[in-house]
Amino acid sequence: MDNPFAEGENRLIRPPSTAMIIFGATGDLTQRKLIPALYNLQLDGYLPPGFVVLGVARSELSDEEFRGRLFQSLKEHSRSVIDLALWETFSRHIFYQKLDLKDSSEYITLKKRLAKLASERGEDLNYLFYLATAPEFFGDIAANLKEVGMVEDPISGFKQTNIVVEKPFGNDKESARVLNQTLRNSFAESQIFRIDHYLGKETVQNILVFRFANGIFEPLWNHKYIDHIQISVCEDLGVGSRAGYFDKTGILKDIVQNHVFQILSLLCIEPPISLSDADSIRDEKVKVLKSIRPFSEEDISKNVVRANYTRGFINGVPVKAYHEEAGIASGSQTETYVAMKLEIDNWRWAGIPIYIRVGKRLPKRITQLTVNFRRPPDSLFRGRQVELRQNALSIQVQPREGITLGINSKPPGPRLRARPVNMDFAYGSSFGVASPEAYERLLLDAMKSDATLFTRDDEIEAAWDVLMPVINHWSGLSSSPTLSYEAGSWGPSEAATLLKPFGHRWERF
Amino acid sequence: MDNPFAEGENRLIRPPSTAMIIFGATGDLTQRKLIPALYNLQLDGYLPPGFVVLGVARSELSDEEFRGRLFQSLKEHSRSVIDLALWETFSRHIFYQKLDLKDSSEYITLKKRLAKLASERGEDLNYLFYLATAPEFFGDIAANLKEVGMVEDPISGFKQTNIVVEKPFGNDKESARVLNQTLRNSFAESQIFRIDHYLGKETVQNILVFRFANGIFEPLWNHKYIDHIQISVCEDLGVGSRAGYFDKTGILKDIVQNHVFQILSLLCIEPPISLSDADSIRDEKVKVLKSIRPFSEEDISKNVVRANYTRGFINGVPVKAYHEEAGIASGSQTETYVAMKLEIDNWRWAGIPIYIRVGKRLPKRITQLTVNFRRPPDSLFRGRQVELRQNALSIQVQPREGITLGINSKPPGPRLRARPVNMDFAYGSSFGVASPEAYERLLLDAMKSDATLFTRDDEIEAAWDVLMPVINHWSGLSSSPTLSYEAGSWGPSEAATLLKPFGHRWERF
Repeated sequence: MDNPFAEGENRLIRPPSTAMIIFGATGDLTQRKLIPALYNLQLDGYLPPGFVVLGVARSELSDEEFRGRLFQSLKEHSRSVIDLALWETFSRHIFYQKLDLKDSSEYITLKKRLAKLASERGEDLNYLFYLATAPEFFGDIAANLKEVGMVEDPISGFKQTNIVVEKPFGNDKESARVLNQTLRNSFAESQIFRIDHYLGKETVQNILVFRFANGIFEPLWNHKYIDHIQISVCEDLGVGSRAGYFDKTGILKDIVQNHVFQILSLLCIEPPISLSDADSIRDEKVKVLKSIRPFSEEDISKNVVRANYTRGFINGVPVKAYHEEAGIASGSQTETYVAMKLEIDNWRWAGIPIYIRVGKRLPKRITQLTVNFRRPPDSLFRGRQVELRQNALSIQVQPREGITLGINSKPPGPRLRARPVNMDFAYGSSFGVASPEAYERLLLDAMKSDATLFTRDDEIEAAWDVLMPVINHWSGLSSSPTLSYEAGSWGPSEAATLLKPFGHRWERF
Repeated sequence: MDNPFAEGENRLIRPPSTAMIIFGATGDLTQRKLIPALYNLQLDGYLPPGFVVLGVARSELSDEEFRGRLFQSLKEHSRSVIDLALWETFSRHIFYQKLDLKDSSEYITLKKRLAKLASERGEDLNYLFYLATAPEFFGDIAANLKEVGMVEDPISGFKQTNIVVEKPFGNDKESARVLNQTLRNSFAESQIFRIDHYLGKETVQNILVFRFANGIFEPLWNHKYIDHIQISVCEDLGVGSRAGYFDKTGILKDIVQNHVFQILSLLCIEPPISLSDADSIRDEKVKVLKSIRPFSEEDISKNVVRANYTRGFINGVPVKAYHEEAGIASGSQTETYVAMKLEIDNWRWAGIPIYIRVGKRLPKRITQLTVNFRRPPDSLFRGRQVELRQNALSIQVQPREGITLGINSKPPGPRLRARPVNMDFAYGSSFGVASPEAYERLLLDAMKSDATLFTRDDEIEAAWDVLMPVINHWSGLSSSPTLSYEAGSWGPSEAATLLKPFGHRWERF
């Protein structure tokens, strides 16, 4: 690895001086996520002295105007209260450059601007290109950056140049492959940082620490002791302002292909050689994805449920049906809910059902992974009217970050009984510090060229490989139509039916 | 089993109508433990309507005088506030009978008194004889009860007659054997209830539930995943009013032979056939005790430490040395502290060190069992300055009843680190009810003839078998003298040295 920041002690220091160039700088993501993340990194002392943000977009804006806009949204979106003096200092590192993404000549201006910023700082800067634009621009941006000589060879070059891209990573296997190829025409894979903000969440990162820093979980982490796994990503929101995009995409592609499969692969990987080396983790994640049993037509009709929501109530407030939302095509079959069962065909997981449930307009917002362990033989408690609950390790990603172990214990009193109790810890009370936002960790890692929490090209493609049979089936003639569920319910009854033959049921939140 | 109350649903009902005859009724135990336990059982509705307490002692007391004495001590020792109306009702079931324990003719009077009490209640009563006297009277009491025909044959008899005895169960293997034989001359083993109040404690009972009602602990409960076990019984008190008895006994016989070995055997047993059958549990406990590797002379000098305390401070208050306490023989070698390492030579436990530490005048009162699991390979965290702590399951018996699982977790922030956190539950906050006193459970069980939480003759003898080499060595000429430790310290430095060769250290409280 040519990356001096990926290992050991070096991780404790700040990243090298970097210019972060944000394409699509006037967009939502910049204002809601990127600038608040950078501000809080600065607050916590993680940014290098020579740090520069150069916002790039089509609008004509001065640096001051750009800073003014960012300040307004920062106040709204920062997890910490804004310190005006710190913002003053921080904002002096923020600049703006008008640019037509498709006009290669303007990239020369961009290059000159960056060179000027570097020389003003008296030091060379790494470049971190952040593509916060629609994916159709990725190809042009990458090609233009390369053409004007802003993509150095990561082996021989002096500056490190990385590029960060946001999902969607394609709309199917083929478009993902093409996108990967487009990026790799200009950048080496090691320079490409595909962001999946779920990987920046504390509890998701903790999956690896929990599994591999404890002696007691890994021996239990296999089909011999685990009964089944559930992953739930529940939203109470509907499609909102993303309706147009969402209706063309659906929740399978929007959530399952990336976030859910990323969580799943961390939960199920074999121990990597090291946690300090991005590729040793990603190699193992790809193995998990490639081991998922391919969906047959029969699997899909039996074990995959799709639905979208009808009118209903969320917290007592009436909400529209999916088909009534602005921007949804009439008669749309797009799913806002998916439930599925899958299996990982390897020695560790053979035969263990993995249930995934993802939906919008469900009763509450919660993302949780639950590993359910096998019941002990209950013969010892025979005749005592004891119902032994399955032990369960629940990792709640949001809204309350924490890990809970559900066990059976004897309640006080003169009878030998067993009752469920929870042993748990919450981040806030255990560590006494607030969790940083996912983007803080991910931006810092990208500046350090640490790709551990970013998705590699083969992961993206392997995830698509798993889902293509479902996607193809749904778009085919033989597919049954999308089911419906009432907004504010836990999804269609068919989702419950899916689990029944295996003696399981969806976790209640 | 001829016992209708040991199994299943029947446990939920009250015991049959019983006369509990307390020998030594004017003593400490009756006032501090037995009557408060009975009062609280009554309060919670567990006592049968036909319940009678008949106190027996040498003093000349009326029923009223006896009740008056009990009321005074009850106010002091009950875990619940005294309800005067309930005491009024309850005390009408309490009676007193003067009796010379050695005079067999007086047992005829006793028999008549009991018959009268039964006829007043219009029902036959079971007899529960509770020997709260010094053990030298056990033989006389048992023989006299039998002689006057108060010990029915448990197979053919109409009434169930049980006898409860308190420790000490002998002073060595031979005296224990003689005592067991003495009791069995009058009673069948199934009628003899040897009380060890540690077995009545909620957390001790929970050992079985924890191990066998959960799918995740039993697979880890062996030498493959456990690194070592520690059992600590720490007292801040000195010998107090028991000095005379204690000096003849020592802490090895006073605590280790009974309480510690009982806890140890529950912690280490193989899964019994049933938790509803006393003998299936006790069979397994005996197997553990019989599997403890016999102490060789070399083991004893290397792996057993004894000491008694010198002057020191407990919570800032100066306290006397053991040798300065009233009632201690001058030059006494009696130990107030024992630390030892032992091993259980069976397939489950082979090679796992089990450390026991028991002492008086230590800095605080705490009884805790800790199962320390093996460390995971730390190669994954190489270069990250992570010290992975051993996972540990800690069962605190007193003062705070609860179970804690120590694990490693990722602290929030941009580095991949691991920090120890605790997942735990406390009885109070988890179940919202106070734990009953150990005697409540045990008295109820004895009335129900459920011997699960009582010690069987072969357990007592097996425990002595383990300790006899140590006892013999200490009384022999080749033994090194008893060490000393400062009151208020955690014991002699030799106790720490004992663990060092194995890379362990005593848990800090």
